[in-house]
Amino acid sequence: MTGGGLFVSFEGIDGSGKSTQARLLADHMRELGNDVILTREPGGSPGAEEIRALVLQGDPDRWSAETELLLFTAARRDHLERTIRPALEAGKVVICDRFADSTRMYQGLSRGDLRAKVDRLHDLMIGLEPHLTLLIDMDPGAALTRAKARATPEERFEDFGLSLQERMRQGFLDLAREFAARFVVIDGNRAVDTVAADVRAAVSARLAVAVS
Amino acid sequence: MTGGGLFVSFEGIDGSGKSTQARLLADHMRELGNDVILTREPGGSPGAEEIRALVLQGDPDRWSAETELLLFTAARRDHLERTIRPALEAGKVVICDRFADSTRMYQGLSRGDLRAKVDRLHDLMIGLEPHLTLLIDMDPGAALTRAKARATPEERFEDFGLSLQERMRQGFLDLAREFAARFVVIDGNRAVDTVAADVRAAVSARLAVAVS
Repeated sequence: MTGGGLFVSFEGIDGSGKSTQARLLADHMRELGNDVILTREPGGSPGAEEIRALVLQGDPDRWSAETELLLFTAARRDHLERTIRPALEAGKVVICDRFADSTRMYQGLSRGDLRAKVDRLHDLMIGLEPHLTLLIDMDPGAALTRAKARATPEERFEDFGLSLQERMRQGFLDLAREFAARFVVIDGNRAVDTVAADVRAAVSARLAVAVS
Repeated sequence: MTGGGLFVSFEGIDGSGKSTQARLLADHMRELGNDVILTREPGGSPGAEEIRALVLQGDPDRWSAETELLLFTAARRDHLERTIRPALEAGKVVICDRFADSTRMYQGLSRGDLRAKVDRLHDLMIGLEPHLTLLIDMDPGAALTRAKARATPEERFEDFGLSLQERMRQGFLDLAREFAARFVVIDGNRAVDTVAADVRAAVSARLAVAVS
């Protein structure tokens, strides 16, 4: 159903450098002759970008955790149908900055009992997982400093301070253990090029494709 | 969980007169001293109205049936949390122009296999049904003429002609049989006051409250 394509996601707390690493991997795989789609969530298709704007702007209490979960799932469904699945069916490499694991972590973290709903909703309306998920693991203090230096109107998830960053880091590490077959944890507390080399090595090792 | 309130929904194809009947019932129950909230879907709370605008405007192929279903469910969840549930918990009468049955009918009709998803999503994220649902049943040709006379930017669902109107009418009648315990079918092909009298009689009979 997903053709011969390859689906790689990047996860990590804000400021972890995952977006930079996603771009570097996309550039590298293109240089090697692959047809690569670099995309992101929330967003990644015109409709999903509109939903993203609706969710991320405004008062943090604007939506309940459940409504936010439904909106993110609507955006993901659109992204899946319009961008990810057509690319995979055409045999392309899809590199995605955040996917369903971000929802598991952020929405699941907001209230413990929500994680079960997140999983059931994913099974019902999405049903696809990446072949490989790269978690860029980063010291929460350093990541927060970096995230705060980038002022955007979409600051809602970066607005809750260091203790939340620490809980989010731990949340991602817990997910990496839960889904050990597709997760690789990369130490992001190093030079960009060093991290990028580890990312390429992980793609090679896990997916048996030549990327270096 | 819903307190001592009373939750009545109106359903029917566009142009059936259900919005007028919802308003007349609200006026009448207010005159009798009830605290009444008259609301509608999609919409009914500020956040849900924004989602409604996103769903209903633009190209009919803008969203897939699944994405549309998720967006409507997000709007319903917001409406439920911010408007319906607080009113019911305060013992008020909530009269709603369309609720989950419209989703069952419209989204379920768009593709047969979607109805199961509609039901599972409702159970997972909404879980509430009206105490009474009044289906204003109307000749599809007359309803279509009436609906077309009201030009709005939100015409997507009225844009598909008579054969779809006939299928939608039948879809609502099928739901009324499926949920016979809470549905009452009212013949809408009559003078507004005559229909309104039947609506009041149905509320009296089914809910054992004095409304006439």
